[in-house]
Amino acid sequence: MRFTSERRLDDGVLERKFTLGEIPGILWTPGAAPAPLILLGHPGGLTTMYARVEARARHAAADGYASATIELPGCGDRPRSAAAEEARADLRRAVAAGEPVDGEIVDRLVLPLVERAVPEWRATLDALLSLPEIGGPVGYSGGVIAIGVRLAVFEPRIAAAILFAGSFVPRALFEEARRVAIPLLVLLQWDDEGNDRQSALDLFDAFGSTEKTLHANMGGHTGVPRFEGDDAARFLSRHLT
Amino acid sequence: MRFTSERRLDDGVLERKFTLGEIPGILWTPGAAPAPLILLGHPGGLTTMYARVEARARHAAADGYASATIELPGCGDRPRSAAAEEARADLRRAVAAGEPVDGEIVDRLVLPLVERAVPEWRATLDALLSLPEIGGPVGYSGGVIAIGVRLAVFEPRIAAAILFAGSFVPRALFEEARRVAIPLLVLLQWDDEGNDRQSALDLFDAFGSTEKTLHANMGGHTGVPRFEGDDAARFLSRHLT
Repeated sequence: MRFTSERRLDDGVLERKFTLGEIPGILWTPGAAPAPLILLGHPGGLTTMYARVEARARHAAADGYASATIELPGCGDRPRSAAAEEARADLRRAVAAGEPVDGEIVDRLVLPLVERAVPEWRATLDALLSLPEIGGPVGYSGGVIAIGVRLAVFEPRIAAAILFAGSFVPRALFEEARRVAIPLLVLLQWDDEGNDRQSALDLFDAFGSTEKTLHANMGGHTGVPRFEGDDAARFLSRHLT
Repeated sequence: MRFTSERRLDDGVLERKFTLGEIPGILWTPGAAPAPLILLGHPGGLTTMYARVEARARHAAADGYASATIELPGCGDRPRSAAAEEARADLRRAVAAGEPVDGEIVDRLVLPLVERAVPEWRATLDALLSLPEIGGPVGYSGGVIAIGVRLAVFEPRIAAAILFAGSFVPRALFEEARRVAIPLLVLLQWDDEGNDRQSALDLFDAFGSTEKTLHANMGGHTGVPRFEGDDAARFLSRHLT
């Protein structure tokens, strides 16, 4: 892990950009150390997503958490995969035509992304937890839900996760969902135009966790109400402190 | 409205039992007046439910709210209705036999209850709002969801409602649900043994409110997690202050 830049935000949070091999990422740390850590997921394209992710990082820092994110494989400035680009184009065509999105397209798009992203997140976690300013425990929040599901199953250092049921889920992930045992808060935008509500409800049902909570709201895909940020903070504080 | 007893709880809350005609009820008021008011619904049988309702009243008082509840028609010491008792027995038989509960049974049980209970709640509200220690605005929380739905539609003094999707809903109420326009927080116990999850999700979908939030949790019918009490308080504080 190599820090490439740093700046102090006006609320005292230290923001440091880093690279881990070819993976670019950002780490935000509050004043007090060592701080528990929240991994901030996003849909890919960290430059575009920066303002929203940074707002979540500031909120986390105000509650005493460090937080970090990395760019997803094939997104932002990272090398594109021809297969993923083709799958993404097929998906967009189906959505634009108002057709149901074939599971085969979802598998082609999401499964390779999960296969690559999860080891990257885990390697990032190794590097972050070796820093003196980062302690445990670790929470995961948001982003591509299939990545969150697999991390929740296979990364034992993640103690609780907030998942956003806002992207397509390969059928194979439903079996993995049954193996999730950590506390979950699942956010669902009830009238999410680009997502299948029933599939999201089926996934919530499938999670093996004895503590799992679903929060469904109106407002479309990007319209998650502001108060859910506070609810998320309280969920994390129940499980990470 | 006639107060029949009063006592001061150890946290300074004043609890007064009252009758309004033949209807028994309880009013809890915090120190500061005039206080906004929360109507506390319950499934009927106020003596049996007292400990749980009183805990909600204390929580409300700690947040600065007055709260009140009344016994439901045909419950507690109030005169039984032969038709309602018969419908309740038919319902219990169907549930015990593991049969789907016929909509006709639900209609026989719930519709007359709603018809009688809603005017009683409204008359209680008239009486409560005439007391100097009670101000507006008014919230409604919990109890038989069909009563909450009709109150939300027809009682303009109720500014926000927390509904518990834990009881059977007559089909006719779904049409009424579309006319609900106030902010709603709907609680659903995902594995509620005595309730139909799909029907609860359909009802949430039907509500006309632009701000409606569903919180689903594990733990069976009576296992609503403690943290939902805090979430409920925050929902009410967003809409009643």
